[in-house]
Amino acid sequence: MKIFDISMEINEGMGVWKDKDDKRPKIEITSTTRTGNANESRFHLDAHTGTHVDAPFHFLQNGKKIDKVSAEKFLGECVVIDLTDIKNRGIEKVDLIKAKIRKDDIVILKTSNEYKKTFDFNFVYLAASGAKFLASKKIKSVGINALGIERSQPSYDTHKSLLGKGIIIFEGLELSKIKSGRYFFIGLPLKVKDGDASPIRAVLVKF
Amino acid sequence: MKIFDISMEINEGMGVWKDKDDKRPKIEITSTTRTGNANESRFHLDAHTGTHVDAPFHFLQNGKKIDKVSAEKFLGECVVIDLTDIKNRGIEKVDLIKAKIRKDDIVILKTSNEYKKTFDFNFVYLAASGAKFLASKKIKSVGINALGIERSQPSYDTHKSLLGKGIIIFEGLELSKIKSGRYFFIGLPLKVKDGDASPIRAVLVKF
Repeated sequence: MKIFDISMEINEGMGVWKDKDDKRPKIEITSTTRTGNANESRFHLDAHTGTHVDAPFHFLQNGKKIDKVSAEKFLGECVVIDLTDIKNRGIEKVDLIKAKIRKDDIVILKTSNEYKKTFDFNFVYLAASGAKFLASKKIKSVGINALGIERSQPSYDTHKSLLGKGIIIFEGLELSKIKSGRYFFIGLPLKVKDGDASPIRAVLVKF
Repeated sequence: MKIFDISMEINEGMGVWKDKDDKRPKIEITSTTRTGNANESRFHLDAHTGTHVDAPFHFLQNGKKIDKVSAEKFLGECVVIDLTDIKNRGIEKVDLIKAKIRKDDIVILKTSNEYKKTFDFNFVYLAASGAKFLASKKIKSVGINALGIERSQPSYDTHKSLLGKGIIIFEGLELSKIKSGRYFFIGLPLKVKDGDASPIRAVLVKF
């Protein structure tokens, strides 16, 4: 069994969506072995911090909340597709049509995006035509190495067309060392009652 | 693939360690589809909320922090041992000696503990003799259905003897519907820089 960690480190200086200060994580130390019995801490985290997963409820008022989505959506057979030739634009249907995607796959889009402490407003995203194409392939979930899966689409067509079909969205994956190919994906959310999303630890496994 | 969810739901009314109010989770709604573009939230969570994993640093000042523990410690071959006959006392070596434990197993102790909104100060725990026995079997990790793995041991011998050997501890597992036997365990922590622990979503899988 070989495990590839594809998660961003959570720290107070990490990059956050559109550089918004109110989205920054805060790690509070509540006890130490010097002052008490043990080292203990408390996390203050946006549901969409770093590597995370969106539930349908994030954009759809009647969509499933994160605690109600079946656990099988968050782990399973996965294909990583190399799209690093694309720069500063959306991934369209034409970019995906030759990819080898199976029904019930978790599809991971490896783009040329890189994580920096400041937000890249021109990040490569999944355009509506690409999202609709993936939905037509009856995939289980989709992931990308960007803090969001879309930008520049005022009606949020990518999120809504995926989440509306029950396709879960993984964002903030760290794929810089990952080659294209097939893996087993694991990215389980915290079971937060009525949650719209959750930070996750995501890994790829080769059994 | 059959997935068994063994995680507690995280909500503001859930049981917390010794009923301490400052350990209660708080789920803050930061945006809704009625007032903005999307449903969004922010979580305020102790590292030891509900189903969680302890890193060696929790009790050992020079122990590994949660972000530095190898991901392989958090998933792998697992044995669930039924110890529900034991009431209100520690699990000792004698209770474990007949269990079929393999090297590198993740060992899950299913006890008679039940989760309530108020803390059970007489919960079944892993006593020092049981912890030392498990360490001698060269297991990978150990888990229990209690918010802590020990009580009533002033020197924290169970935590320290396990964590000192690099054996990771899962607490707050929800095992009421789980039968004894072998499974594949998954319980990955958030990659929080310098963390002592992390809430997790834990599952058992039969492939």
